[in-house]
Order: sequence, then C-alpha cells, then structure tokens
Amino acid sequence: MTISQVATIQDARELLTSMPAPDCGAFEAASERNSQLTKPAGSLGRLEEVATWYCGWKGDAKATVEAPQIVIFAGNHGVTAQNISAFPAEVTAQMVLNFEHGGAAINQLSKLAGAELSVVPIDLDKPTADFTQSAAMTEAELCIALNTGWSSVNVNCDLLVVGEMGIGNTTAAAAMLTALYGGSADDWVGPGTGLDDEGIRHKVKVVQRAVDLNHSDDPFEVLRKLGGREIAAMTGAILAARHKKIPVILDGFIASTSAAVLKKCDPSALDHVVAGHVSAESAHVDVLHKLELKPLLDLNMRLGEGSGAAVAIQIVKAALACHSGMATFAEAGVSDG
Amino acid sequence: MTISQVATIQDARELLTSMPAPDCGAFEAASERNSQLTKPAGSLGRLEEVATWYCGWKGDAKATVEAPQIVIFAGNHGVTAQNISAFPAEVTAQMVLNFEHGGAAINQLSKLAGAELSVVPIDLDKPTADFTQSAAMTEAELCIALNTGWSSVNVNCDLLVVGEMGIGNTTAAAAMLTALYGGSADDWVGPGTGLDDEGIRHKVKVVQRAVDLNHSDDPFEVLRKLGGREIAAMTGAILAARHKKIPVILDGFIASTSAAVLKKCDPSALDHVVAGHVSAESAHVDVLHKLELKPLLDLNMRLGEGSGAAVAIQIVKAALACHSGMATFAEAGVSDG
Repeated sequence: MTISQVATIQDARELLTSMPAPDCGAFEAASERNSQLTKPAGSLGRLEEVATWYCGWKGDAKATVEAPQIVIFAGNHGVTAQNISAFPAEVTAQMVLNFEHGGAAINQLSKLAGAELSVVPIDLDKPTADFTQSAAMTEAELCIALNTGWSSVNVNCDLLVVGEMGIGNTTAAAAMLTALYGGSADDWVGPGTGLDDEGIRHKVKVVQRAVDLNHSDDPFEVLRKLGGREIAAMTGAILAARHKKIPVILDGFIASTSAAVLKKCDPSALDHVVAGHVSAESAHVDVLHKLELKPLLDLNMRLGEGSGAAVAIQIVKAALACHSGMATFAEAGVSDG
Repeated sequence: MTISQVATIQDARELLTSMPAPDCGAFEAASERNSQLTKPAGSLGRLEEVATWYCGWKGDAKATVEAPQIVIFAGNHGVTAQNISAFPAEVTAQMVLNFEHGGAAINQLSKLAGAELSVVPIDLDKPTADFTQSAAMTEAELCIALNTGWSSVNVNCDLLVVGEMGIGNTTAAAAMLTALYGGSADDWVGPGTGLDDEGIRHKVKVVQRAVDLNHSDDPFEVLRKLGGREIAAMTGAILAARHKKIPVILDGFIASTSAAVLKKCDPSALDHVVAGHVSAESAHVDVLHKLELKPLLDLNMRLGEGSGAAVAIQIVKAALACHSGMATFAEAGVSDG
C-alpha cells in the first residue's frame, strides 16, 4: 500500500486495511534482553512493557528514543455559538500565537523532552459548522483535515505526540463519543476548561441535540458530522504514524477521541499507541477503557496541547534508557538469584 | 541550630526540634504566578502543586531544577541468615560494583535526569546483626550510618533522591513498620525481589519473631534494632535535606520506611518531601498512607536503587519548566476566560 496522501475517505478506509505489524523478531529479542538485565525479573514494571513494545515498533531490540515529535493541531468550532465553553472562541488563535512565541505549557514540555514541536492551525478563520444545526464538516473539509494530519508526521521521528487546541472541542469529543459508544450525552460530557454545574447541564443538552441530529454507524461519518478539523487531523496523524511504524503517545480526552475513530474501524489500529496519561476530564477514563489502553501517568492534568503525553515522553525515554543501557547479569558479574 | 554532624542519637533528636519551614513569601508569589499562566485554572493538576511546593522550599517564586542529586546507600543484613531473600547476600556488593561501572538502572535514570549520582556502600563486610537474635545495630553503629547519610547530601544540590541496595532490606523495613505502626507482620511483608508464597509465609514468621524480640516505642530505637545501615543513612540524608531546605523525592518501600522514622517523631518532618512513586511491593501503598503522601507515579516498579524517584525527577522538572517558563495571560495577550 503506497498511498501518499489521504485525498478521499476511501483512502483512509484502505489505509486501515493495510496496517503494518510490529517487528516480532525485534520484540522477542528485546524481551530476551530484558530478562537478562541486572534487576529482579519484572522489577521495572511498566517500564519493561513500554521498552519491549517500543523496540518492536522501532525494529531494534536495543532501541533508544532519539527524535520525538510533538504536533499540535488547532481548529475552531461553530458549536461555540451554543455557549458551551468557559473561554471565548478567540482564545484558539491567541493560544496558537502563544505556541508560536514559546509561551505555552507545551513549549516548555517539548524543550524538556528534546522534542521537535510543530504547530498546525487549520483554517482558524473558518470554524466548522455548528453541529446542532448541520454536519460539522463536508467530506472535502474532513479529507483536508485528515490529510493535514497525515502529512504533518515527520518520517524521521521515532516517537510521536499529537495534541490539540480548539475552544469547544470537549463538546465535539463528547458528541463523537456518544455517537461512537452510545449511552447518553451525560456519560461523556465534563467541565472542559472549567464549566460550572449549570454550564455542564447546558452542554449535555447541546451534545444530545447534536447527536440526535447527526448520528451514524460509520466512525468516519461521526468524525465528519460531530468532530472538528484538529480532531480529524489527529486521526490522520495517528494513522500515518502506524504506516510509518512510529510509536505514538496519546494525550488526553480529545486525542483519545481521535484515536477512537480508528479503533472503532479496526480493533488492532492502536497497537502502536500507548496512553500517556488519564486526564481529569471525567469521561477520559471511560474512553481509555474503550480503547483498552492503560495510562502511564495520572497527574490530574486537563490542559490538552499534548501536554500530558509530552510529560509521558520522559517515561518512555526512561524505559528505553534502562532497557538499552543496563548491563546484563553476565556482563556485570551479578548472581541472578 | 548548627549541628554539623549526627554524632549521637541526641543530635538527631535535637535536629528534629529545629527544622526550618519553607519560604512562605516565595510559596505565595509562586501561587500567584501560577494563577496568571496561560492555561485554565488548575489544568496542570499535580504539576501545579509540585511547582509551588518546590518554589517554597527553594525560596524562589520562579525556580527551576538545576542540580538534582541521587545518593544510593548500600548495606548488608544479618537477617539474610534466615533465608528471607530470593537473591544471595553477595548481590549487594556485586550491585555496588554495577553502580560504579554504570550498568544498573539507576545509572541510566541518573544520566537521563541530569543528576549527580553518588554510591555510598556502608561497611558491606560487616552485616548488621541478625535481628531475630539481637538488635541489628549498636547505638554507635546507628550513629555512623545516620551521619553517613547526613554528610552525603551535597549542599549545592536543589533536589535530592535517596535510594538503597541491600539484600534482605524489605525484611528489615517490614519489621520496622510492624514496630512503628502495629498490626501483624503479615500486613507489612511482601515478596521483595521475588519470593513465592511459601517464601513470603516464612518471611512473615521471621519478621514477627524479630518484632517480638525488638519492639520499642521510640522510632530511633526501632531503626537501631530492626533497621539497617542503608536505611538509617537515608533517614539521616532526608533530615539533612530538611535542614538545608532541599526538596526530596522519596523512592519506594525501603526509602519510605526510612522517612517514617522522622514522621513518627514529628508529623511535619516530611513537609519537604514528595512521594516519587508507589511501588509494587504490596505494603508500600499503606506506608504512603501513613506518611500522608500521594505518589506522583504508579508504574508497578519495585527495584529500589532510587529508581522510581529518579523517574519522578522528570515530573518535578516538568512542573517547574511549565511554572517558570510559561507566559502569563497578560504577556501573551490571551483572554483569561
């Protein structure tokens, strides 16, 4: 399969039927190496799982993280007309400037992780349609967003974080999750950037109306009708990473919703993905359960911007540093119990 | 109070009566700064708590972590004669060589964190007495160990991790915890480096015998009779860090037991301490509950060597990178909701 762009929804569907698997030889060699390192068996816990998983995808039994990339997509949402956010829609563009000037949390976390940071605003002056009135995007708009994500992944990176900025996007994500997994809007709506109880009750009603109008059994149709440009771009980027065999660290509630589209299409679509953290947005824990992913961190974060996943880069780096740098029992002359 | 060494138990007790407090002005200024950064209030979760806590202790409202230090203490335990470990006692010295040659997990994690690593073996050729037969240490031996810890802390470091290596030391820690907090030995004993169920049942009996012989209401007597040299050294180092106002990240089950001695003497003794992680050793979660500390990480690690806390250095660095590097709403021209 050599699709070089996602020009149509059909391209995306075909890419999901031709996903590469990890390198089993590298995974097995990494597992064997892990069993010989100077520590009691299993004593590095999840660091060991992460290390062997990463080695499998990188195709190197003694891999290290050398070139992480963080891509932040930004989009605007017509549903902000329904007064569902604690912040005005202008903040999306203001925060993009803040990213570009180096003042946001993700700038500091990228620097700390030694990651390349790309900021990709997508048509900020053209919000998606208000999905309480009609579908959020046309098929053409969805494809542009998917392809923007697809083409933003640096082929030379060896660990990818996708993040987002978009006032109103917890509303879009909650609507998508209601459509994808059922239940009532109430199950998937949380405070986002800081709604009070009354604000949340209003948001639940908005989401329920949106889902009643725009339900679909097709995950890509859910993405088109209830998603947003930055959400679709993350879906495209996660799919691109799979085709390039680049391991992905998932961020919070919105990024997980982007990933859910792929998982709904194929249960193995997220095998190259680890969950960076569980966010404080109340439904994120349920989304991760649906994705069958266990978060590396639980720090009560709920910022988005890829920030939780960016912190988790350090955990993946720590896992590989131990795995590939430690001596074996034989090398160190240590008794192995 | 200008005690320059812990020559007697009385010195340690006096140091506990003269502990410095954090800089309230720096803490309040840091909290004020935190409220103005370009993010929804509270959205960095525990990173915000950690940042303001650290700023208070460092006395700088815009602090960063520049010079972390990791000190690993090693000691041998007479109780290994009771066959309570999955590894032979020789492994303590072998692992010290592995630390010195750079082959252990903590070497890789220190390098990743940019930390200075010190390895301090304490009389490895003189194991403590088997505490099922008599007290583990004399008062003189305890003081040497406390003072070794006290003097190992680099006055120029700005974040301290203390870790340990000592075959048999989960048995010592379980005995200390039974003596400090009550309950039966069964409540505090776990598999350590990898005992099976029969091994754990035997270890419980050994711990119960030790506690029956060596109980005391005085935390320092518990440390002397049931502890070990590396355990006492960590107690001394944590106390030294307090007097130097150096924030400490606590490692796992053994390090937490060292800290428990101080907390038992004074409930505020660990105000300069954050828990790096909760280990897979089953009773660690209960120890942290007693210490009133909530772990930053839960990665199913159980290696010791300071390894969990060393990973957590990255979390503290991330917290301070955000806190001190981010723009305020006013600086970035972002609407604050």
